[in-house]
Amino acid sequence: MYGNASEKTRTKGCLHPIEVGMRTVKLSRSYTCRGIEFLSVPLYDTSGPYSDPAVTVDPERGIDPVRDRWNFNTGKTETCPETGAASSRGRIALRAKTGESITQLAYARNRVITPEMEYVAIRENQLLEAWIAGFSIGGKTFRPHTPEFVRDEVAAGRAIIPANINHPELEPMIIGRNFRVKINANIGNSALGSSIEEEVEKAVWACRWGADTVMDLSTGAGIHRTREWILRNSPVPVGTVPMYQALEKAEGVAENLTWELFRDTLVEQALQGVDYFTIHAGILQEHLPAAHRRTTGIVSRGGSIMARWIKAHNTENFLFTHFDEICDILGAYDIAISLGDALRPGCIADANDHAQFGELKVLGELTLRAWERDVQVMIEGPGHVPFNLVEENMRKQLELCHEAPFYTLGPLTTDIAAGYDHINSAIGGTLIAALGCSMLCYVTPKEHLGLPDRNDVREGVVAHKVAAHAADLAKGTPVAWLQDELMSRARYAFAWEDQFSLSIDPVKARELHSASMAASGQMEENPDYCTMCGPDFCSMKRSQGK
Amino acid sequence: MYGNASEKTRTKGCLHPIEVGMRTVKLSRSYTCRGIEFLSVPLYDTSGPYSDPAVTVDPERGIDPVRDRWNFNTGKTETCPETGAASSRGRIALRAKTGESITQLAYARNRVITPEMEYVAIRENQLLEAWIAGFSIGGKTFRPHTPEFVRDEVAAGRAIIPANINHPELEPMIIGRNFRVKINANIGNSALGSSIEEEVEKAVWACRWGADTVMDLSTGAGIHRTREWILRNSPVPVGTVPMYQALEKAEGVAENLTWELFRDTLVEQALQGVDYFTIHAGILQEHLPAAHRRTTGIVSRGGSIMARWIKAHNTENFLFTHFDEICDILGAYDIAISLGDALRPGCIADANDHAQFGELKVLGELTLRAWERDVQVMIEGPGHVPFNLVEENMRKQLELCHEAPFYTLGPLTTDIAAGYDHINSAIGGTLIAALGCSMLCYVTPKEHLGLPDRNDVREGVVAHKVAAHAADLAKGTPVAWLQDELMSRARYAFAWEDQFSLSIDPVKARELHSASMAASGQMEENPDYCTMCGPDFCSMKRSQGK
Repeated sequence: MYGNASEKTRTKGCLHPIEVGMRTVKLSRSYTCRGIEFLSVPLYDTSGPYSDPAVTVDPERGIDPVRDRWNFNTGKTETCPETGAASSRGRIALRAKTGESITQLAYARNRVITPEMEYVAIRENQLLEAWIAGFSIGGKTFRPHTPEFVRDEVAAGRAIIPANINHPELEPMIIGRNFRVKINANIGNSALGSSIEEEVEKAVWACRWGADTVMDLSTGAGIHRTREWILRNSPVPVGTVPMYQALEKAEGVAENLTWELFRDTLVEQALQGVDYFTIHAGILQEHLPAAHRRTTGIVSRGGSIMARWIKAHNTENFLFTHFDEICDILGAYDIAISLGDALRPGCIADANDHAQFGELKVLGELTLRAWERDVQVMIEGPGHVPFNLVEENMRKQLELCHEAPFYTLGPLTTDIAAGYDHINSAIGGTLIAALGCSMLCYVTPKEHLGLPDRNDVREGVVAHKVAAHAADLAKGTPVAWLQDELMSRARYAFAWEDQFSLSIDPVKARELHSASMAASGQMEENPDYCTMCGPDFCSMKRSQGK
Repeated sequence: MYGNASEKTRTKGCLHPIEVGMRTVKLSRSYTCRGIEFLSVPLYDTSGPYSDPAVTVDPERGIDPVRDRWNFNTGKTETCPETGAASSRGRIALRAKTGESITQLAYARNRVITPEMEYVAIRENQLLEAWIAGFSIGGKTFRPHTPEFVRDEVAAGRAIIPANINHPELEPMIIGRNFRVKINANIGNSALGSSIEEEVEKAVWACRWGADTVMDLSTGAGIHRTREWILRNSPVPVGTVPMYQALEKAEGVAENLTWELFRDTLVEQALQGVDYFTIHAGILQEHLPAAHRRTTGIVSRGGSIMARWIKAHNTENFLFTHFDEICDILGAYDIAISLGDALRPGCIADANDHAQFGELKVLGELTLRAWERDVQVMIEGPGHVPFNLVEENMRKQLELCHEAPFYTLGPLTTDIAAGYDHINSAIGGTLIAALGCSMLCYVTPKEHLGLPDRNDVREGVVAHKVAAHAADLAKGTPVAWLQDELMSRARYAFAWEDQFSLSIDPVKARELHSASMAASGQMEENPDYCTMCGPDFCSMKRSQGK
């Protein structure tokens, strides 16, 4: 898919039997950047085995369960025979033995470097250690990430590695503000559309364009089987909102939800291998009056369900009252908790209000409770926020949530961009990521209008890759700066193939260039101009005295 | 084009015989925002007569020359009979009599309110004086714009009204940071593509989607006639880079350019009615060594031409040495000068360098020289700039250029977004506009790749409308906040038609919603959900207890 100039390469670890996949671009000529000559460059790659021509994936069998070969956690886990049938590939699910703590956070606190930690250290460096060490900007210097640094960031709670021990197909990745900014793509059939096969294809499709995680937000029939298929075929972490399935079990009636029903749903999904759960434990009785006064009320699906339940029973949110039990379940599989922002603003007028920040404070308290139980935590954030109020969101999140990674939906900086909300979200997303947000949830052009199709997913993913990359540049991330410098040198050299390979979406770049050339009747292979300015008005050409 | 709920309305002035066109949206129900009930709302409209069903435009005749009926400047101008044939509609061009100063800046300094000033005051308020006066945010209160305020902003040089007295078809607009953020769309056939008819259609097309000005960057054959057609059909200000035509007259050889040839080109375009000229008078001999050391040299077309000329003749930029004469020509027609940033960075690595800021300092000096001659000025800005360095651009521009309006191309916050540079540019554009940039030049998805087609123009315009509007919200602009609040109330009420009408691109919003509903087999007219979440999982519905 990336063209012949790219190939899948794998790098072995030193501490563990891991192999880290990257996309290595062979350049058409050498480029010298800050004294280092590049003939090829490895790029961060989320596409898993799908972009490897040597691998044929059979979706019915799923992709290679690489983590099973790393042989970690030996002796600390046990099988769950009573629920083994849950897995389509016949693998019996695992959980921590009673008294054992197998989360990345627990290992990090015990100063152990797991295979996952070594994996992400290699992955984040992109084999560019020499470049990173030589890079400086605004007086700031950098060091390549070491497995020890990864461990320390996880131990501090500043980063998480969502990696359920029952998701062996996973290529580990890290979410934290001292690493590359990540993006999530939501998939999932709503009751009105799309088949399971389409959903699996959508998950794979999102990773191909650069999604670092996917959330399966299925709400229709066949919810268990959809998830199973996605997990067995997903090289990236899969998140869910277990409340959606719990509500289906309660036949769609929020009032009928019970803790037991929810708990059983958590276990069901844990055994399947879900890597992180969004749980709306922070919305409390005390917040409802403020939410009620808003212009658009509660716009989080999970949040609106819990608000209904709280009101109907006139009692506290059971996700809050049972929070420690939730953590104990999640810890046994190393599922990360993504604390849902039930009260995220749904319009500009509701941004940064008492309801929103009241809940954020509770999320900070829950963070400490999760950490006490060695459970990895991230915090979900808004939502609709005007550009000038975005900074306050990031600042308060850092203050109130003890530096746990922030994971935001946008923010969307206006309410009136229907049809273009992916752009709207990329605008707010760049700002909050540059300020320290660790992961952006994508928004597609169909947001507020309908269910995204394949093209919407691609547009949404790429728009947020632009945002994430722009934020990485703003933060001075050396590997990000290298890609831009190579791109610009290729641009100045009219090396079109290199430009395509180095673009966020190589396929689109090539397609638009070729179409323009063809439309203008120019069939030259590598012209030293493009049709935007034509051959006589190219400033780059003129600037080089050509 | 906007649907039946919108109609063209015209508001008369008090001081002058003007009629200000707006798009008034009839809402399907009333919405109460901050105590005021709205059954309809007037929106800022750049589409001119084209969106008025009562008007049939014949492109051969051009649109109604409304300004001719305002009878201003009487006695201060004279006809230019020697060049009368320049006009396709037989109108004889005008210029100021010797000794008369007819620029908006000259009038403003003399405390005169021109028809153009009254026009923009009414236009910016959108007839929402009551809403504006009642609006407050973060302790800040607002007042509707008065013609006096417009005059004072123009007098201070903080805002410009580009309005050549030979462009009578113009609906005046204002560019300045205390007004709504504006956007420009570039059009123009490069040597390789598109016909004159297509270019006129593109100009009209850009205004329909929201372009506040267009720049005709034509470089091919028939350059004079292309411009004539665009001007006679353009309700928005038209800008050009006269150097492009001058270079054609010099048969494409930069070395052969002369001041006389350039001067004659200025006059030729002035008589046609061009409203603002980009002139690269700030690039000097002393800047060339720094530009030469860059990763991508000089990426401004006009800049690369002048650099070649300077080098070939080993003498100072003739646009700089003849700057006072240039101002005298422009002043006679009230053409605004857009001081070109010949040394804008063409890649992230070159951002904010000595070459760029060295030129900016010269632009500040030229601003004062233009103001001495009563010529309106804006300053062009970058270009490729990482997100964290954008703020410095705005700060330095304000410092060095005495608060003359800033007009930037993007900035693009990464080099690797080929195919998605409209999004990239909207990201940087929102930031710099929120900080005080007055106008954003659009970038299309084809930037760096080829000549934009109709759809690229629309995508580019709308992406930058999103940016401009997000910046307006960030600055607290009351009319912007109203549109978002109405949109959100319509969203919460599932009033789909109102949502479409209030969207930046009503056509796209309707289209995506209808297509999703149809694809899912739902044919209900006004369902209280969309296919994104389906009827059972709609949080807004649930939040209202439905």
